[in-house]
Amino acid sequence: MTLLRAPTDPRWVAVALEDLDRTLADHAHCEKKAAASALKLVADHADRPDLVRALARLAREELEHFQAVLAELARRGLALPPDEGDPYAQALLRRVRSGGPAERLVDRLLAAALIEARSRERLALLAGALPDPRLGELYARFARAEAGHERLFVDLAGRHAGGLDVAARLAELAEEEARIAAALPLLPRIH
Amino acid sequence: MTLLRAPTDPRWVAVALEDLDRTLADHAHCEKKAAASALKLVADHADRPDLVRALARLAREELEHFQAVLAELARRGLALPPDEGDPYAQALLRRVRSGGPAERLVDRLLAAALIEARSRERLALLAGALPDPRLGELYARFARAEAGHERLFVDLAGRHAGGLDVAARLAELAEEEARIAAALPLLPRIH
Repeated sequence: MTLLRAPTDPRWVAVALEDLDRTLADHAHCEKKAAASALKLVADHADRPDLVRALARLAREELEHFQAVLAELARRGLALPPDEGDPYAQALLRRVRSGGPAERLVDRLLAAALIEARSRERLALLAGALPDPRLGELYARFARAEAGHERLFVDLAGRHAGGLDVAARLAELAEEEARIAAALPLLPRIH
Repeated sequence: MTLLRAPTDPRWVAVALEDLDRTLADHAHCEKKAAASALKLVADHADRPDLVRALARLAREELEHFQAVLAELARRGLALPPDEGDPYAQALLRRVRSGGPAERLVDRLLAAALIEARSRERLALLAGALPDPRLGELYARFARAEAGHERLFVDLAGRHAGGLDVAARLAELAEEEARIAAALPLLPRIH
């Protein structure tokens, strides 16, 4: 099961492997930003205990991944470069409606689900193509975790829908996501 | 060893215990904000591997504490109330100089050290006064962790001083912190 409407261009994997240092660094930033975004959702919706508990756990998992990727960078003698920003995630988050609070929350959760879905797809592609089996296993583990996060965000959107049609909105956003992903240049980045 | 120039008003403990639900909720928000602030420092100084590694670990510890306090709130049937903001931390962070990048980084690290020091002091006061031994042990554990964070932030300031006199600046900020803390109303909050 995936939320994605279109697969990543198959040529991306070779590009990502060709400058693996840069791909790993981008991935580290992704994990850090995923943790920070989850904490922002917690801060904005502190009064929803199930959301707060689930996203606190998710943020901690993202930080564990961040630490694991940092360790991998250190093993390669690399420092984390400055974050180059994430035009993919920014484009998707611009689709978040600012109408009512329920609309806004549902859209943020569904956008997060789609970002996790795309990350899972690409981490799994990397896991299958990495020549180093140790690193491949690490990336397979990351991909499994992102699949759990993808489901979690969709579940949370359903539980906090406030009467909105979540499935219809997810379909719309998934179409947008596929268009945004298809327009991305092929770069050694996760997105 | 503590960085604090003045102890908390001894009457604070009774106030904190009298509305323990509110104190716990404020503490949960403190832990969440400590994690978020550490991630902000990481994002702003990605190119300093020791700082990044240490603060990623610290952020994860703060999230573990956040989860533990959330579990305690759930046990009491409470949701997290909205964050009321932290005038204490805001007042101290206004002292961070925006001059050069080294000044700014050292000041942010030293302000963080002082906030950890005040948190540690108050969590230890709570630990010693809580009638429930289970909760007392939990708070003693939190206080020990904050003591470690206090030292870590001072160490990081020393390592990233860029020629600045860290001890002199710490002395100045510690005086400011003591004045700010002394002016706080006695409330069921950590700060």
